[in-house]
Amino acid sequence: MDATAVRAAIQAQREPMQALFDQLRLDGLDEPGVSRDPYGAGEQRAHATVANAAAAMGLEITRDDAANLYMTLPGRDRSAPLLVIGSHLDSVPHGGNFDGAAGVLAGLAVVAGLQKLGVTPDCDIVVMGIRAEESVWFQVSYIGSRGSLGTLPDGALDVRRVDTGRTLADHMTECGGDPDALLAGSRHFPDPAKIRAYLELHIEQAPSLIEAGRSVAVCTGIPGNFRFADARIEGQNDHVGLPRRFRRDAAVAGAEFAMALDTLWADYDARGIPMACTLGRFHTDAAMHGLTIVPGGFHFSLDVRAYDAAVLAGLEEKVHRIIEGIEQRRGVRFHLGTKARAAVGLVDPAIQAGLEAAAAALELPVLHIGSPASHDAAAFGAAGVPMGMVFVRNANGSHNPHEAMTMDDFLDGTAVLLHWALSALTCSNG
Amino acid sequence: MDATAVRAAIQAQREPMQALFDQLRLDGLDEPGVSRDPYGAGEQRAHATVANAAAAMGLEITRDDAANLYMTLPGRDRSAPLLVIGSHLDSVPHGGNFDGAAGVLAGLAVVAGLQKLGVTPDCDIVVMGIRAEESVWFQVSYIGSRGSLGTLPDGALDVRRVDTGRTLADHMTECGGDPDALLAGSRHFPDPAKIRAYLELHIEQAPSLIEAGRSVAVCTGIPGNFRFADARIEGQNDHVGLPRRFRRDAAVAGAEFAMALDTLWADYDARGIPMACTLGRFHTDAAMHGLTIVPGGFHFSLDVRAYDAAVLAGLEEKVHRIIEGIEQRRGVRFHLGTKARAAVGLVDPAIQAGLEAAAAALELPVLHIGSPASHDAAAFGAAGVPMGMVFVRNANGSHNPHEAMTMDDFLDGTAVLLHWALSALTCSNG
Repeated sequence: MDATAVRAAIQAQREPMQALFDQLRLDGLDEPGVSRDPYGAGEQRAHATVANAAAAMGLEITRDDAANLYMTLPGRDRSAPLLVIGSHLDSVPHGGNFDGAAGVLAGLAVVAGLQKLGVTPDCDIVVMGIRAEESVWFQVSYIGSRGSLGTLPDGALDVRRVDTGRTLADHMTECGGDPDALLAGSRHFPDPAKIRAYLELHIEQAPSLIEAGRSVAVCTGIPGNFRFADARIEGQNDHVGLPRRFRRDAAVAGAEFAMALDTLWADYDARGIPMACTLGRFHTDAAMHGLTIVPGGFHFSLDVRAYDAAVLAGLEEKVHRIIEGIEQRRGVRFHLGTKARAAVGLVDPAIQAGLEAAAAALELPVLHIGSPASHDAAAFGAAGVPMGMVFVRNANGSHNPHEAMTMDDFLDGTAVLLHWALSALTCSNG
Repeated sequence: MDATAVRAAIQAQREPMQALFDQLRLDGLDEPGVSRDPYGAGEQRAHATVANAAAAMGLEITRDDAANLYMTLPGRDRSAPLLVIGSHLDSVPHGGNFDGAAGVLAGLAVVAGLQKLGVTPDCDIVVMGIRAEESVWFQVSYIGSRGSLGTLPDGALDVRRVDTGRTLADHMTECGGDPDALLAGSRHFPDPAKIRAYLELHIEQAPSLIEAGRSVAVCTGIPGNFRFADARIEGQNDHVGLPRRFRRDAAVAGAEFAMALDTLWADYDARGIPMACTLGRFHTDAAMHGLTIVPGGFHFSLDVRAYDAAVLAGLEEKVHRIIEGIEQRRGVRFHLGTKARAAVGLVDPAIQAGLEAAAAALELPVLHIGSPASHDAAAFGAAGVPMGMVFVRNANGSHNPHEAMTMDDFLDGTAVLLHWALSALTCSNG
C-alpha cells in the first residue's frame, strides 16, 4: 500500500473524528476542562458516544465483566490472534479532552481507513475503550486493562474512589460490569497469546515533540513506578511563636523531603538516567491548620518512576534513607501507608521497528522517546502481549484543561498506525 | 504585705479556679480539645461562665461595643487610673483549655485574693475578658483589645471568619456588640492615660520553663510580626511523568521557600537573634491535586516575628529576595496577598522590675524570656499603656489539645500578680 493512499484514507477521517472529539468534550464538560470519572457518569457518557459511533461504522460492539468496550472489525479468520488498538476513556478531574480518548479514536480512524481502502485484514481488529486508567481516582493502576487480562492485584475491587468513598466493585456494577465474575476468574483475554499485538496512540504528556518540531514519536519504553498514595508525616501542633529547637513541624519536614527528592532527581538527570518524582498531594491538614499553628500533621502522595527495574529499586532505597535522616533531624515520623507498584513496560522491538518504518514511508520524521507516563500498554506488555505506542505532539502537558493536540498531528499519528497495520497484517481487497 | 499571707490568699483560690477551668473545658469541648470560636458560640459560652463567676464574687459586670467583658472591683477612688488584668477567652480550633483563659482567671484570683485579705485598692481593678485574640479565625490580630482602645485597623470589621465566611461586624452584632458604634469612634478606653497598667498572665507556649525547671517567667518583650494570611504560588498542573526541565511545580516551589526560611531562621538562631517563622497553612489545592498530577497551585500562610523592628524589616526584605530567586529558577509566580503586621510590644521596665521583685519576695526563681507569641498586652503597649506579663510553665506547647499547666504553677503566677498589686497600688484595709 503506498503512502499517498494511506494519507488519503486517514485524511477522510478528519471531520468525523473532529466531530467525535467535540461530542466527547461536551459529554465530559466540567469547567475548567473535562471530567470523565471512571466507572461514573463522565466515563459512562464517553463510552456511549464512542460505542454509538462504532456501531454506525458497522463494528461489532461487546463489553466484558470489567465493563470495557470492544469495537471489532471482523477479519478473514475470526479465530486468528487479534490486533488490539486501544486506550482509555476516563480522565483526571478537570483534565483535557485528549489524554486517553485520542487513542480510542485513533483505533476507530485506523479501522475506518481500512474500510475506506476496501481491505479486510487476516485477523479481527479490536478497538478497545478501556476503563479507569487514571489512578488518581481509585489509586490503582490499569484497572480496565488488567481487568480484561485477569491481572488485577488482590483487593483492587474493594478500593474506594477518593471522591465518592464507594468501592470499585460498587461503581463497576453500576456501569454494567460484574465484579463477582472477575473475582471468580472471568477475563476477556484468558490467553494473551491470542493477542497478536497491542497498539496505543497517546498524546505526549511532555513538550519534547514541541521542542523538536515534530508531530509524532515512537515509544521506546514505559516507566515502572512505586507509589505511596496516602502517606503522612506526624509531628506536633504547636503555637506560632515556639522557638525553632522545640518544633516538630510536619510541614517543614515535608518540605525537606520534597527538596531532597528534587536534588536526587537533578542528580539523576545530570547523569542521564531518566526518572521522575511527583508529590501530587502535598498538604497540611485542612481540619487543623491555620495561620498561627505550627503544623503537626502533613499529608502527601508520592509517585517515583523509571524505565529500569534496578534504577527503580535503587530509588526506593534512597527514599527510605532520606526519610530516616529527616525523622532524626526533625523529631517527626513518616507513615508511608500502602505501597503500590507497576512494572516497567518493555516495547516489542519488532513493533517499534515497524512503526519507525511506517513513519519513514510516510516521510514523517519521528522522535524516539521513553513514555513519560504510565499507559495501559504496559499492562498488556506485562501480560506477555507484544506492545508498541505512538505519541502525538501536544501543547501544555496533560492532566489539565489546556491540553492542545491539532487534528493534523492526530492524523499523522493515526496514519503511522494504519500504515503499520497494512504492513504487519495480511490485508486483502474486499 | 508578707509573702505568707499572699500565698495563703492565693491558695484559697485553688478550688474555685479549678472548678472554673473545668466548667470552661466543658463549655468549649470539641474533641480533640476545645474550640472557643471568637464572636461565636464557643467564646460566648466562656464569657457567660466567667461573667457569672465574677458576679458571684460581687464584681461589677459591664461590656463594651466590641463585646469585651469587664469585671470590676471598685477602688477607693473610682476616677483614678485603672489597673487592668486581662487576657482572651477565645481559642484556636481544637486548642487547649489554658491559652487565654488562664489570664482571665488569674485576674479573678487576684481580685478574690484582695477580697480574702480584706483590702481595698486605691483604684478600680478591672479584670478584662477580651474577645477574639486568636487570629487564625479572622486573620486580624488583637481584635477585642484594639476594639476597646480604638486602634483596630481600617477594614477590620469587614473581614470574614475563615470557617463561616461571615463578617466580623456580623459576628460581633450577634454577640451583643455594636460595630457601627465602633466605626463611629466609640471606644471603651478613650484615653490610655486613664489606664495605670495592663497586666497579663499567660501559659508559656514553648517549653523553656519546663527545661529550666521553674514555674514562672517574667516577660521581657512581645514580638512584632508581619503576616501573609492567604498567599499562593502559581505554577502549572501537569502530568506525573513530565520531565523535570519542563515542570512548573508549585508544591516544590513551596518546599524550596520553606527550606530557605528554615535555613534563614537557623542562621539567626546561631547568631542569637530571636525570631520565628511559621508556614501554618502549606498545601496543594484540594480541588485539583492528586497522585498523578504535578501541582499547579500551592497555598500557604506565613507568620514571621521578631522582637526588634529593624530585625523584622530586614527579614521582610530577605523573604522577598528568596521569592524572586525561586520564581526565576522554577517558572512560578508568588502572589502574597494582603500583608498584616503587628508592632513589637515593649514591656514597661518598672513593671518588669516590680514583677521580678514580687517573685523574689515569694522565693520563686523566675526566668526572663521574650514572649514567643503575640498577646493582647502588645496592643495595650502600642497604645501607650505601661504593660507587663507573667508566663506560667506549660507542657506540650499551646494551640493544641494537649496544653498542660498545673494548678500549682498557675497559683505561683497568680501570687506574683497579687504581690505586685499589693506593692504597686496603695491598698487599705476594709
